[in-house]
Amino acid sequence: MDLHLKESRVTGELVYDGHFLKVQRDTVRLPDGKNTTREYIKHPGAVVILPLFDDGTVLLERQFRYPLDQVFIEFPAGKIDPNEDPLVCAKRELQEETGYSGTDWTFLCTIHNAIAYSNEHLDIYLARGLTAGDSKLDDGEFLETFRASVAEVMTWVREGKITDVKTVIAAFWLEKIVTGQWTP
Amino acid sequence: MDLHLKESRVTGELVYDGHFLKVQRDTVRLPDGKNTTREYIKHPGAVVILPLFDDGTVLLERQFRYPLDQVFIEFPAGKIDPNEDPLVCAKRELQEETGYSGTDWTFLCTIHNAIAYSNEHLDIYLARGLTAGDSKLDDGEFLETFRASVAEVMTWVREGKITDVKTVIAAFWLEKIVTGQWTP
Repeated sequence: MDLHLKESRVTGELVYDGHFLKVQRDTVRLPDGKNTTREYIKHPGAVVILPLFDDGTVLLERQFRYPLDQVFIEFPAGKIDPNEDPLVCAKRELQEETGYSGTDWTFLCTIHNAIAYSNEHLDIYLARGLTAGDSKLDDGEFLETFRASVAEVMTWVREGKITDVKTVIAAFWLEKIVTGQWTP
Repeated sequence: MDLHLKESRVTGELVYDGHFLKVQRDTVRLPDGKNTTREYIKHPGAVVILPLFDDGTVLLERQFRYPLDQVFIEFPAGKIDPNEDPLVCAKRELQEETGYSGTDWTFLCTIHNAIAYSNEHLDIYLARGLTAGDSKLDDGEFLETFRASVAEVMTWVREGKITDVKTVIAAFWLEKIVTGQWTP
């Protein structure tokens, strides 16, 4: 199925192998039989954690993102290590970035954030039963955490104060869950 | 403000200048005074169009995305040409990809889809007053269009059938608008 849309790999190579980014360039066969070039980032995948406290607030981060030269409000997230289980990664990243550990973890959804030029996917988890502890930020990682209500987060989405896609999507899911419309 | 989070450029260069992807690698000064490397995609920005018919259905596309080797359900979207106004781009992309033109355009929000490694932003527009016409797909572009109700789209988001971030976020906005919760 979908042969009228599908593209097939002919040849390809890793054309940029950087410290963080890896760029693959493939020659592909189009549905009409012609060839073209596709370039994309090879990404290991990532996780996003939605830490929900019993009082209905969530834990967020403020982090400077160099490509856009600004501080973003984000839910905790991180890249999956080689052969790491996504849920193990989510628990690790929450603890490393915020110090919190959770007893109750629920998978919400997978999202794809740059389908034209990256194979990245992000698995979003809801974390409850939270207990504070010590954070262990990576070398060169700087962020601060804060708590906000669901109503505040949704206002910031509507007003454009939250624009990071993983955080926007997690916020909409959060509202669906706390209002009882969606049961994860 | 935010000097305890901010990173500053020291030097940098374009390390990969491909057909589609451009990778910038900068040496940056961290908040603690140390230097590190940041690599990111230089992207011109893009637009997303949410085409809403008077009967409450929306226009969607099915398109094969090579980096993930699968067909995605998406709202129409496209890259902004050099010096192009985003709204002009949105009108152009809707007509090129689907043939439709709209008389009533409303800006909804800007989103950032890969803040760790791309400076891409996407401006999302609601398009109403739609009239069918002829599409003019780019060379090497293959897609099909279909219509669905808001309820169907939201079910596909919840079930994980729609995972493309621009489409997920536009769907949540759509529901907010048609239920009267948010007035754009």
